[in-house]
Amino acid sequence: MASTYIDTRNLKFTLFELLKVQELCQYEFFADHEHETLEMMIDSAKQIADEHFFPFLEEADRKGVTYENGTVTVHPQVKKVMEVMGENGWIGPTFSYEDGGMQLPHTLGLAAEFIFNAANNNFAGYPGLTAGAAKLIASFGSDELKAAFIEKMTTGKWQGTMALTEPQAGSSLSDITTSATPMADGTYRISGTKIFISSGDYTDIENVVHLMLARIDDAPPGTKGISLFVVPKHRMTEGGNLEYNDVTTAGVFHKMGQNGYATVHLVMGEKDDCHGYLVGEANRGLSYMFQMMNGARLAVGMTGTAIASAAYHASLQYAQERPQGRRWGDRDLSKGQTLIINHPDVRRMLMSQRAMVEGTLSLILEGGRYLDLEHVSEGEERKKYNLLAEILTPITKAYPTDAGLQSVSNGMQVLGGYGYCEDFPLEQYYRDIRITPLYEGTNGIQSLDLLGRKVTMENGAAFKLLMGEIGQTVAAASSHDDLRKYAGKLKAEIDRLIDVTQHLSGIAMKGQVELFLADATIYMELFGLVTVAWQWLKQATLAAEKLAAGNLLAEDTAFYEGKIHTMKFFFVYELTKCIGLVETLKAEESLTVLTDKDVLQEQV
Amino acid sequence: MASTYIDTRNLKFTLFELLKVQELCQYEFFADHEHETLEMMIDSAKQIADEHFFPFLEEADRKGVTYENGTVTVHPQVKKVMEVMGENGWIGPTFSYEDGGMQLPHTLGLAAEFIFNAANNNFAGYPGLTAGAAKLIASFGSDELKAAFIEKMTTGKWQGTMALTEPQAGSSLSDITTSATPMADGTYRISGTKIFISSGDYTDIENVVHLMLARIDDAPPGTKGISLFVVPKHRMTEGGNLEYNDVTTAGVFHKMGQNGYATVHLVMGEKDDCHGYLVGEANRGLSYMFQMMNGARLAVGMTGTAIASAAYHASLQYAQERPQGRRWGDRDLSKGQTLIINHPDVRRMLMSQRAMVEGTLSLILEGGRYLDLEHVSEGEERKKYNLLAEILTPITKAYPTDAGLQSVSNGMQVLGGYGYCEDFPLEQYYRDIRITPLYEGTNGIQSLDLLGRKVTMENGAAFKLLMGEIGQTVAAASSHDDLRKYAGKLKAEIDRLIDVTQHLSGIAMKGQVELFLADATIYMELFGLVTVAWQWLKQATLAAEKLAAGNLLAEDTAFYEGKIHTMKFFFVYELTKCIGLVETLKAEESLTVLTDKDVLQEQV
Repeated sequence: MASTYIDTRNLKFTLFELLKVQELCQYEFFADHEHETLEMMIDSAKQIADEHFFPFLEEADRKGVTYENGTVTVHPQVKKVMEVMGENGWIGPTFSYEDGGMQLPHTLGLAAEFIFNAANNNFAGYPGLTAGAAKLIASFGSDELKAAFIEKMTTGKWQGTMALTEPQAGSSLSDITTSATPMADGTYRISGTKIFISSGDYTDIENVVHLMLARIDDAPPGTKGISLFVVPKHRMTEGGNLEYNDVTTAGVFHKMGQNGYATVHLVMGEKDDCHGYLVGEANRGLSYMFQMMNGARLAVGMTGTAIASAAYHASLQYAQERPQGRRWGDRDLSKGQTLIINHPDVRRMLMSQRAMVEGTLSLILEGGRYLDLEHVSEGEERKKYNLLAEILTPITKAYPTDAGLQSVSNGMQVLGGYGYCEDFPLEQYYRDIRITPLYEGTNGIQSLDLLGRKVTMENGAAFKLLMGEIGQTVAAASSHDDLRKYAGKLKAEIDRLIDVTQHLSGIAMKGQVELFLADATIYMELFGLVTVAWQWLKQATLAAEKLAAGNLLAEDTAFYEGKIHTMKFFFVYELTKCIGLVETLKAEESLTVLTDKDVLQEQV
Repeated sequence: MASTYIDTRNLKFTLFELLKVQELCQYEFFADHEHETLEMMIDSAKQIADEHFFPFLEEADRKGVTYENGTVTVHPQVKKVMEVMGENGWIGPTFSYEDGGMQLPHTLGLAAEFIFNAANNNFAGYPGLTAGAAKLIASFGSDELKAAFIEKMTTGKWQGTMALTEPQAGSSLSDITTSATPMADGTYRISGTKIFISSGDYTDIENVVHLMLARIDDAPPGTKGISLFVVPKHRMTEGGNLEYNDVTTAGVFHKMGQNGYATVHLVMGEKDDCHGYLVGEANRGLSYMFQMMNGARLAVGMTGTAIASAAYHASLQYAQERPQGRRWGDRDLSKGQTLIINHPDVRRMLMSQRAMVEGTLSLILEGGRYLDLEHVSEGEERKKYNLLAEILTPITKAYPTDAGLQSVSNGMQVLGGYGYCEDFPLEQYYRDIRITPLYEGTNGIQSLDLLGRKVTMENGAAFKLLMGEIGQTVAAASSHDDLRKYAGKLKAEIDRLIDVTQHLSGIAMKGQVELFLADATIYMELFGLVTVAWQWLKQATLAAEKLAAGNLLAEDTAFYEGKIHTMKFFFVYELTKCIGLVETLKAEESLTVLTDKDVLQEQV
């Protein structure tokens, strides 16, 4: 069994050496923290994950989630996780003190998500979603709602959820039909059905608080008529007791993976007694929800990176222990077999795992840093970081989850036939990670968001800012002899990305919107590669500086040399994909937009 | 639930229009067949698959394989499958009449494998491996062995297996230690352990016949000391009864997928009473086994294509039934939602599935045709087809299985969150297909075989022949206005492939063998793309000819137009990957060959 799931040294390198997250402590909001305490937070999260998450990963999968007579049963450790996370401040650690938080930077919060998800992705969502739901109430709810719910949630006593999806409305939220009828007392009666509700119900928890999208009677059609409600499973009576709120769990979904994470089917108002409490103003629910969704998207991207990290460490450990075959030029059969980590093809797979994990980790944490800087800045500066965070959000959701599948698949291949068997954790990681390209807006939806909204927003301002940031890294890398070649390669890819973006914009300007967006997913892959290469070049530049400065411990020298080596690996094995993607994006054939001659319909 | 798993029209197009397999009937060995009867064979296989395979796919997975007190239990339908397949000649259909076969071309045999595996990949291996094992006896066994085993196997009464792998010897077969001690009666006493033995044991079957690699006492070390034995679970007594042969099943492997396919752990000779019967000459076992392995490799490649086909049809059907969202420029909310098949990103995923399935199907069947032509030809002609079959074998194993994962993953993405749930077959296909890059020599091993052995064999003769075949397709396509552009693109990729092959050969000639082979997997991906593009251009050329000739039914016009459209899709979305792969292969950095500074070992 694998004994670890993250490289703490690398996480601290990324946070404190590369992103210098401790510099945020100069801002008032974060003023109570300093480098040392932030680092202690990471150690504390790791300790909790070691004790309460990682040992239960396999059990969570094997035991699964069961549904009987309306009751959902999960692994008993889930309740313990909620308690421990609540007690230690890890449900909403980035919240203000007022809202029961620790005022930690988002960058740190995401680092903790990385740790918890890498240790046990089946459990991390329970506290994670609770924080997200509480954040919505904290941001937009009345004082009454805040008082009633936030503390219960951040202490882990009550579970929170996001309840968006309905059977007929998944990607298309405008088609939501769950209804909310206003009552004289200011509450609403909720009626409808929600599906795919993660952590949506389980017996061990006192209450489940759904942050639910619904349509107030006579609201305008489409997204402009959607409101946000707090819909608890049990509502509080005036006497302070909990009373059943007519939220029925109709079933659980049987999934390929994340078997320890409850995904439920809810029916509200069967007895016409489901009370909902409006959050903020009527008909603004979707814009509120999207503030949470953005955080959720970074968290899902991080889940991809985290599972890929755990898989990497499991593969690495196996490769260091498994003898098989002999190196070329050393075929002496009287000698024992060599460890498989010595075979180039195995090394290639392991390095591709490492390059994906460490590159996307740094990219997502960079996204978190932009959120933090947006939070503490003002005026132009604030605008700048907002735009950077906006454009990075869909990329940090889609790329780590898509690349994560391939990374875990490589990890399974390292183990050969054993990788396919339950004796090793790879097969579970392979099943678990597959949900991440689907969660929180499929990666197709993220790609439409990137190309159709983020790249074009404010006349391309976010795009230009990001290219500027990457350009700075290219300039810094160019001053190192060993890195100049790679700086040049990234510069060439930026130029090509700009060029293809202009090409696509030209199509949009001709009004051919469907054609403009048809290959958004290919564009996303291209953009993901460029931004992860940016992070690798940034890491390598810092490593080169450290090596040049000298005076290092042997293990640090090895660490920084490994960084430069892995950067080169990403550039040689991954960034080289860009040129082909650009060719696809610039192809003149329109092959996927529906025309009268439908080559697919014919095939039935 | 999906109602189909293959496109029969396309299969017949590939067999009879594109490959003209009926022309093989002019050779004596196949003289009893003709176009019509061959087509009837396909229909008959489809009917059996419809009735006995497809309806049990989900059950096979859910019921799984259980092990208790030494007894392995599989789905009861497995026994029925063996009976029906035996009765209808589908266990060894390509065998000579003498060996109980139908003397069908391999191309047809592979087409049947496609049908059975697409219908239920959990069952197809039972008869498939039985045929492979019987073929080994037929090819190399004594008349006595033939008389004792072949008929029992081809009629489906006895199960056959290939027993190669041992705990310490997976990819490295030279390290096999199972021993064979010669006895006075000419038999051997077998002692050892075998793992990962597919269809290795189950209660419902009368006997299991293992074609097993073992080392005769005092045989030379390594691959030159490996012999092939028939080791039945029950041996025949002189009186004609079955007697237990000291082959113990120590357990079954719990896999991520193919849960209905028994994979067992065998221990031979615990009571020193396991009899083995030598096949052919001593110490030549590995070369015998590889004749079966080549067939098995084509079959595994076909399994990849087959599962991807079933997944494609399930995704296509869902996309034709599921309304969600609206097309750009048609956002009228008062109208219903559009079917998701009308969204470009969904169409892109479906077309990538189709392009993979139909392109690799045609490639593998081309490989089968080469085997048939080798079989019936003589002299130079025979040599030519042998070389073509040799070089295509690792490609037809690796590419369809690697590309198959991506194809099925796209198929799951089409279904959104539902794709991840057990209500639809995609999640099972996703789990099932993942074994195929591992089976019968991992794809890493196939890649070493391609670059290290097949490309270089006889001074590159096989490579040159294959390039010549592709060149003919390029020339034929160039005469069609609509195809000239694509012919040019394939020509450019061939030139690049030749160039990079020379580049790599240069490294080999300098004696840097480990570096030469380090990126064999990347080379395999490149080669796979070029050969599938070749097949697509060939299909499109034929389609263009049919369309030019005119006088077609509307559905045929649509079929041929769809072929040209899908060829373009493969060229625009897949073949464009080649340029980046070539860049990787020509990179000067040596990043995966082990040096003194091991960037991976450091990370523990």
